[in-house]
Amino acid sequence: MIKVTIYNEFFHEQHHEEVKAVYPEGIHMALKNQLSDEFEVRTVTLETVDTITEELLNDTDVLIWWGHVQHDKVPDEVAERVQRAVLDGMGAIFLHSGHHSKPFRKLMGTSCNLTWREDGDYELVWNIKPAHPITQGIGRFIKLDHEETYGEPFTIPEPDEVIFIGSYEGGEVFRSGCTYRRENGKIFYFQPGHETFPTFYNKDVVQVIRNAIRWAAPIYRTRIECPWVKRPLAE
Amino acid sequence: MIKVTIYNEFFHEQHHEEVKAVYPEGIHMALKNQLSDEFEVRTVTLETVDTITEELLNDTDVLIWWGHVQHDKVPDEVAERVQRAVLDGMGAIFLHSGHHSKPFRKLMGTSCNLTWREDGDYELVWNIKPAHPITQGIGRFIKLDHEETYGEPFTIPEPDEVIFIGSYEGGEVFRSGCTYRRENGKIFYFQPGHETFPTFYNKDVVQVIRNAIRWAAPIYRTRIECPWVKRPLAE
Amino acid sequence: MIKVTIYNEFFHEQHHEEVKAVYPEGIHMALKNQLSDEFEVRTVTLETVDTITEELLNDTDVLIWWGHVQHDKVPDEVAERVQRAVLDGMGAIFLHSGHHSKPFRKLMGTSCNLTWREDGDYELVWNIKPAHPITQGIGRFIKLDHEETYGEPFTIPEPDEVIFIGSYEGGEVFRSGCTYRRENGKIFYFQPGHETFPTFYNKDVVQVIRNAIRWAAPIYRTRIECPWVKRPLAE
Amino acid sequence: MIKVTIYNEFFHEQHHEEVKAVYPEGIHMALKNQLSDEFEVRTVTLETVDTITEELLNDTDVLIWWGHVQHDKVPDEVAERVQRAVLDGMGAIFLHSGHHSKPFRKLMGTSCNLTWREDGDYELVWNIKPAHPITQGIGRFIKLDHEETYGEPFTIPEPDEVIFIGSYEGGEVFRSGCTYRRENGKIFYFQPGHETFPTFYNKDVVQVIRNAIRWAAPIYRTRIECPWVKRPLAE
Repeated sequence: MIKVTIYNEFFHEQHHEEVKAVYPEGIHMALKNQLSDEFEVRTVTLETVDTITEELLNDTDVLIWWGHVQHDKVPDEVAERVQRAVLDGMGAIFLHSGHHSKPFRKLMGTSCNLTWREDGDYELVWNIKPAHPITQGIGRFIKLDHEETYGEPFTIPEPDEVIFIGSYEGGEVFRSGCTYRRENGKIFYFQPGHETFPTFYNKDVVQVIRNAIRWAAPIYRTRIECPWVKRPLAE
Repeated sequence: MIKVTIYNEFFHEQHHEEVKAVYPEGIHMALKNQLSDEFEVRTVTLETVDTITEELLNDTDVLIWWGHVQHDKVPDEVAERVQRAVLDGMGAIFLHSGHHSKPFRKLMGTSCNLTWREDGDYELVWNIKPAHPITQGIGRFIKLDHEETYGEPFTIPEPDEVIFIGSYEGGEVFRSGCTYRRENGKIFYFQPGHETFPTFYNKDVVQVIRNAIRWAAPIYRTRIECPWVKRPLAE
Repeated sequence: MIKVTIYNEFFHEQHHEEVKAVYPEGIHMALKNQLSDEFEVRTVTLETVDTITEELLNDTDVLIWWGHVQHDKVPDEVAERVQRAVLDGMGAIFLHSGHHSKPFRKLMGTSCNLTWREDGDYELVWNIKPAHPITQGIGRFIKLDHEETYGEPFTIPEPDEVIFIGSYEGGEVFRSGCTYRRENGKIFYFQPGHETFPTFYNKDVVQVIRNAIRWAAPIYRTRIECPWVKRPLAE
Repeated sequence: MIKVTIYNEFFHEQHHEEVKAVYPEGIHMALKNQLSDEFEVRTVTLETVDTITEELLNDTDVLIWWGHVQHDKVPDEVAERVQRAVLDGMGAIFLHSGHHSKPFRKLMGTSCNLTWREDGDYELVWNIKPAHPITQGIGRFIKLDHEETYGEPFTIPEPDEVIFIGSYEGGEVFRSGCTYRRENGKIFYFQPGHETFPTFYNKDVVQVIRNAIRWAAPIYRTRIECPWVKRPLAE
C-alpha cells in the first residue's frame, strides 16, 4: 500500500469562517478521507511541522503539500529535508498555492511567481495529454465553477511534461499540471485548490491526485553521493 | 540581410470572395509587403511549388509556410527537400494551418492533430516567455478580435519552449507558439492566421514573425552525414 | 502478459558465416528464447515483413526492431503503419543499427546519423539514471568486450531522457540509451547489438531490453484525430 | 561591450605550489588576460566576495564562477543574490568544480553530485552539437592531455541541451557541456578546468568560454514578480 503524507498549513480553515465552512476539518482531512480507501494516509499541519523528520520522510512514498500564507513559518531545515527526500526518490505533489512553498522553490531553483486575481471565475482545466498515467479517467477538461485565477508567466523551469492547461472565465491561461523528474524523485504540480472553494471535493480533481500518487510513488530510492572512485576497469 | 522565402498555398484568396477581400494579393504578399523593410523576401505559391529547389533553399535563411486545404498537392520530394534543408540549418516558421503541412509533420514525426471550430471567437495569445527573442516588443498578450479556434490536445512532440499559449472566447487553450531545434535547424510554430481574418495585418503578429525570422536564421549550415571514421587519437 | 513482436531483418545471419556462428537462428530468435519466460513473443523478418499489418500491430504492446543493410526494403506503408501504431500508443524499442530504420527516422523527424567504425573496441555503457525503470538491476556500467563503435554527433532530437552513455576503447562517446514520448507512445533507442558480437546474450543487455518492454507497454491506446468540436460549455 | 565578472575562489593558487606554478596570478587572471580583448572583465575572489553586490550584478552581463574547496565560505546572501540576478536575466557560466557551488546548486535544485578521481587521465571533450553558438570554431573534440576525471551519474536536471560529452582515458563519460534557461537567464556548465592542469590556457577551452559569454549575455533583463492583476479585457 502506497504511503502518503499530506502537509497542510491549516491556517485559513481555523481563522476564516468562509473557509471553515468548506473544509471544517481542514484540507488535509478532506483529502485524507477521500484517499484512505486506496492509500495509507498520514497528515501533518504547520503546528506539527517538526514531525516532518527524516524518519517520516523515509516512511513516505508520496508527500502532498498545501500551503499559502505561512510558507515562511516552515523551518528551512524541514524544507531542505523534504527537498533531499525527493532527490533521494520520494514522490511529491504540490497543490495550488504550494507553488510558493519553500520545498517547491528549492526543487525548481526559480521564483515560481505567477499572476493572480480572486474574482470567482470558472476554470476549465484542459487535459492535453490523454495518454498520461495522471490523466486516466479524465475527459477533455475539468470544469470548476469557481477558482482563484492563476495566470502566466509562471516562472518555473520548462516542465518535462505539461499535462493540463487551465483557462479562466476572464481569459487567462496557466500551465496547471506539470511534471518534473529531479534526481531519483518525481514531482507533480497541480494548480486547482483555492481554500474558499470546494475544489478538493471535485471527483475529477481527486482522481488526478490519486493518479499522481500512483505515478510519483518511487521505484528506487537511494542517495546518490559524490564519491571518489577507482578507474572502472581496475574494479 | 536575412533572406526569407514565403510559401503560401494561395488557394482561398483566389477562390473565396471573403478571403480575397482580406488578402487581395494573397497572404504571402501581405507578409512580404510588411517584412521587406528588414528582410530580402521571395514568395512561392502552390502553383510554383516546384521552384522550391535545393538551390532556392540553399539561398534561403528562413522559410515561412502557410498552407491549408492543398497540403496533399505539395509533392513529397519538395516536402523532403524542405525537411532536409531545415536539418542542414535553414530556419523554418510554420503558420496556423501549416501544422498539417507535409514538411512540418515530417519534421515533428507526429500527426500534429488538434481540435478546431470556426465561430469567430476572439483570442488572447498570452506571452509566457517575456525574455525570449521571439517575444521582444510584445506585451502580456496579443488580442485578436476574431480567430479560428484551435484546441488541445495538439499532438506535437513536447516543444523545447512553449512561448505563447492562446485562449479563446469559448474557453479552449492552445500552445500557440512553440520552438524546436532539429539537427542544425530551428523551427517555430505560430498558431494565429486564419485566412478569413486580417490577422497578418496585426502589428503584434507581424512583430512576432519578424522576431522569429531573426531567431531562426542559421549561424551554421552544413549536412551532418553518417561517416566511417578512424580512431580519434589515430588522427 | 505483455505482447512483444520482434522484427529482425535476418540478412547477415543467413549470408555471413561469422554472424551465423553467433546467431544461428537469427537475432530475433536469440531474443525470443530469452524473453519468452516473461512475455508473449512473436517474430517477423524482412521476408515476412508484410505480416506487419494493422491487426498485428493492434495486438502488439511493444515492437522491437533490428535492421541494418536492408532498411530500404521495408515498404513505406509498413513503416508508416508502425509510426502510426506508436503514435496511437504501442511501445517501440529500436536496437543498434535500427537508428537508420524507416520507422525510427519517421518518428524522430531527423536523419539519425552518427559516426562509426568497426575495430572490435570494448564498450562501457554507463548507467546515468540509476532510478529509471529501464536501468533497474544494472550496475554503474555494462562492459561489452567488443562492439561496433558508434560516435557523436548522433543527429536525433534532444531525448526526453538520456539513460545510458557509451564510451569505447578508442575514446568515442555515444548517447546509447534514449527515451522519447511521441503522442501516446513510448520509444526507447538502445545502441548495443552489432551482429558479429554476442551482445544479445549479455545478461545486462537482455535485462535492459526486458525493463524497456515493461516501461514501453501502453497504458492507454487510441488514435487522437483532428476533430471539429463544439464550444466547450455548449456541450 | 559585454561586461563579464569572473569569480574565482583563489585558494589553491595561493596555498599549493603546483597550482601556483600553473596559475601564478590565479585562474581569474589567466581568464581575464585572455578575454579582455573582447569583453570588459572584472574579477572577484573569495576574499572580496562581499563585493558581489546587487549593483555589481546589475552591471554584469555574464558571471563566470570557479570554486572548489571553499564553497561553504561564500555567504548564503551572496549565493541568493547571484541566483536572483540569473533569474532576472544575467548570464552565468559555471566551470569545473563550480558544479558544487552554492549558486549553481540553488539554480539547479539538485545536489549536482558526480563521481571523480584524480589520475591525470587525458580527456576527449566531444562536440555533439556542431551547430550551437557555443561550439563555433571547435572541431570534433577537444583533447586535454590531463584532466581530473568527472563521471556519471551527474545529478543535475535534464539539461535543455547537452553540448559536450567528455570521455576519459579510464573510460568514464560525463555531460561536460550543458545549457539551461531559468526564468530570464541562461546558464552554461562546462566541466574542464582542474586547478593543477593548464586547461584554461587551451585555446579551444577559451574559445568555448568566449562563445558561451556571447550566448549567455542577456537580451532582456527584468524581475518577474507575482502581481495581483485585473481581468485582462478590463484593462
